[in-house]
Amino acid sequence: MKPVKVGLLGLGTVGTGVIRIVEGHQEDLSSQVGSPIVIEKVAVRSMDKVRNIAIDSSKLTDNPLDVIRDPEIDVIVEVMGGIDGTKEYILEALERGKHIVTANKDLMALHGSEILAKAQEKQCDVFYEASVAGGIPIIRTLIEGFSSDRIMKIMGIVNGTTNFILTKMSQEGASYEDVLKEAQELGYAESDPTSDVEGLDAARKMAILGTLGFRTNVELSDVSVSGISSVSKEDILYAKQLGYEMKLLGIADRQDEQFSISVQPTMVKKSHPIASVNGVFNAVYVYGEAVGETMFYGAGAGEMPTATSVVADLVAVVKNLKLGVNGLKAIVPYKVKKLKSDEEISYKNFLLLHVEDKAGVLARITQVFAEYDVSLESVVQSPNEHTDAEIMIVTHDASQANMNKVLQHFESLDVIRRIKSVYRVEG
Amino acid sequence: MKPVKVGLLGLGTVGTGVIRIVEGHQEDLSSQVGSPIVIEKVAVRSMDKVRNIAIDSSKLTDNPLDVIRDPEIDVIVEVMGGIDGTKEYILEALERGKHIVTANKDLMALHGSEILAKAQEKQCDVFYEASVAGGIPIIRTLIEGFSSDRIMKIMGIVNGTTNFILTKMSQEGASYEDVLKEAQELGYAESDPTSDVEGLDAARKMAILGTLGFRTNVELSDVSVSGISSVSKEDILYAKQLGYEMKLLGIADRQDEQFSISVQPTMVKKSHPIASVNGVFNAVYVYGEAVGETMFYGAGAGEMPTATSVVADLVAVVKNLKLGVNGLKAIVPYKVKKLKSDEEISYKNFLLLHVEDKAGVLARITQVFAEYDVSLESVVQSPNEHTDAEIMIVTHDASQANMNKVLQHFESLDVIRRIKSVYRVEG
Repeated sequence: MKPVKVGLLGLGTVGTGVIRIVEGHQEDLSSQVGSPIVIEKVAVRSMDKVRNIAIDSSKLTDNPLDVIRDPEIDVIVEVMGGIDGTKEYILEALERGKHIVTANKDLMALHGSEILAKAQEKQCDVFYEASVAGGIPIIRTLIEGFSSDRIMKIMGIVNGTTNFILTKMSQEGASYEDVLKEAQELGYAESDPTSDVEGLDAARKMAILGTLGFRTNVELSDVSVSGISSVSKEDILYAKQLGYEMKLLGIADRQDEQFSISVQPTMVKKSHPIASVNGVFNAVYVYGEAVGETMFYGAGAGEMPTATSVVADLVAVVKNLKLGVNGLKAIVPYKVKKLKSDEEISYKNFLLLHVEDKAGVLARITQVFAEYDVSLESVVQSPNEHTDAEIMIVTHDASQANMNKVLQHFESLDVIRRIKSVYRVEG
Repeated sequence: MKPVKVGLLGLGTVGTGVIRIVEGHQEDLSSQVGSPIVIEKVAVRSMDKVRNIAIDSSKLTDNPLDVIRDPEIDVIVEVMGGIDGTKEYILEALERGKHIVTANKDLMALHGSEILAKAQEKQCDVFYEASVAGGIPIIRTLIEGFSSDRIMKIMGIVNGTTNFILTKMSQEGASYEDVLKEAQELGYAESDPTSDVEGLDAARKMAILGTLGFRTNVELSDVSVSGISSVSKEDILYAKQLGYEMKLLGIADRQDEQFSISVQPTMVKKSHPIASVNGVFNAVYVYGEAVGETMFYGAGAGEMPTATSVVADLVAVVKNLKLGVNGLKAIVPYKVKKLKSDEEISYKNFLLLHVEDKAGVLARITQVFAEYDVSLESVVQSPNEHTDAEIMIVTHDASQANMNKVLQHFESLDVIRRIKSVYRVEG
């Protein structure tokens, strides 16, 4: 059988894994698709770099256009990352009728709809399973496994770096700064960790999951984001005392046809299955109207897990190629986008307040909650220093608009010395 | 657009759910497949039964052949269950070129290869996502999500009834008999619970998962099975003391190209993600050579979760119908089946022995293990009654053949009054 020729853009961690799987599992792959799959050309940044994989140097080029414009190549696997430049390469490849497998969450979150529209125009496949939660086939699950259902909620631990940091802080009582340093030494966090710790990476993945789950075009700007850099070990200790674990959760929430998407440090009830997802692991919890509670767990990053998803996509493209049906099952979001307003977004909140320790303080504080219609689930007051006390409050579900008013009011309340922490609560 | 007409065989719990989803989510479904999906005819056992769903009585028939032979109908959804009769209906439907969606694990485990061969001959789809683990899209995951990987181990809690019983026994210290009675009252266990509690239901599902995971034709007779009816509350208590939870696990295990499949009560280390899957929930843990550890969790049964999977399959069939590619992506197991021998099957064991309480007993027992090359991880001896003691032993990985020799030797060892329990240990 004539081999299917694949062009690879990028030979970093994931690209190396892709070659390892395609070569190592060749017999299994060709048994499934009916012909050999060959990595024909590889675009690399530097031709001279020492690599930990043996590859015929005649296959290498430092010009991605050599790969994209090779008429022998049917499928482009893009694992070089980046947005500018990469987007143009992919659009040109599609223009030339080549199918795309990509692991690029940034690109898909920011320009997914443009790329998918071009793919549809040219009847090409664009698969991107590896862009969210590495080895977990969550994109297939949302598109195919739950095609029949109405997804009401998606909660994801979709960033391994921050989950590693929060897990360590929780298990060892360590500070954010110390664990971040350790994560950087272990290679789990980058030297500039902003994209991970400030929740931007997770937000991109949630935009992709939201688009698929809600079948509407979620853009990155629709996701409200806050990161973990201000989570203190004290916060985590208080969370544990109340029976919660702190997690950086992406939450996509739907009511009727309106939705909200956010990423923020969240206190998750320990009995919830996502609360015990630890270390660099990822998990996506999906609540469907019909299917109920489900959760999908696995490695969110790393050479081989991510490459597993990339090559599974490649197998799907090649099967379509054999049948001549590429690009025909494109998923086009068909719902009008309706974002919830602050009045409609509603959840439980945890607050930690630093207050004056004198008579009537609690009454004044609870009065403010009552004024804005926020009811309370629990209130714990404990003395702190001399004339100070700390109050922990967990609210019932409250609208974001009302909570904002409460917090604003608190700013001007003289008995409150400081609003130390405010977190979303789930489970 | 011309509607796609579907025939339904069976209107029990799952059939009712299928109608609810197809009608309730009609707009979503037709947006995805490009035309309405209509349940055209429904075969029921009794025409007069009072139903908790409104259905036009002109659609009902008590003769499945009326559905199968209706030339207007393109897709048959089989949710009537059973093997004899049902198999013939499905084969005739395929013969007539109709595509099949089924939730029938018994049929697929026993006659899957015959049905799939007929489907391939007639270029028809046969999808059966709902046959294993209800709402969890594990079949798609094994076929597509992990097409690129080499699956080394599958561990499944794939029977909700037994997981409910073991969870209750563990959480409340109750006896098997009491919890079984409660499960029967709640409708979680049938009046004749044999198929569930003796592991037969789980074995059928594991045969299906093994076939897909190992890409070879696993038959039901390849699965060694034991159930939970002899698990005592004492066993569960001892398990907990040592840091394990008792679960009825299906385990499909591969080394190189050889595999073994079994279902048995298993002591699972509490830190393993599958140990905390409780109640009627199901979970399938998959270890792939490249992807590493993954787990998929959700409702394993019930009207709406199971119907979610059935209708997701229906959407897939209808999409294929529109593209004219039904039956072309059939999965044909391509590997020669090689079962492990007892010498090659190897795992940790837990033993609870009732022994005479006198000097030298432990020495004689450990001597037997040594004779058959079984090394020990831990040994705990505790006094029981007057002249008796109990010994708990956890072995390191040991071959089944050697363990059988040890147990046989123990039968004739006078200091051992009784081998109270032997369990597989995982995690």
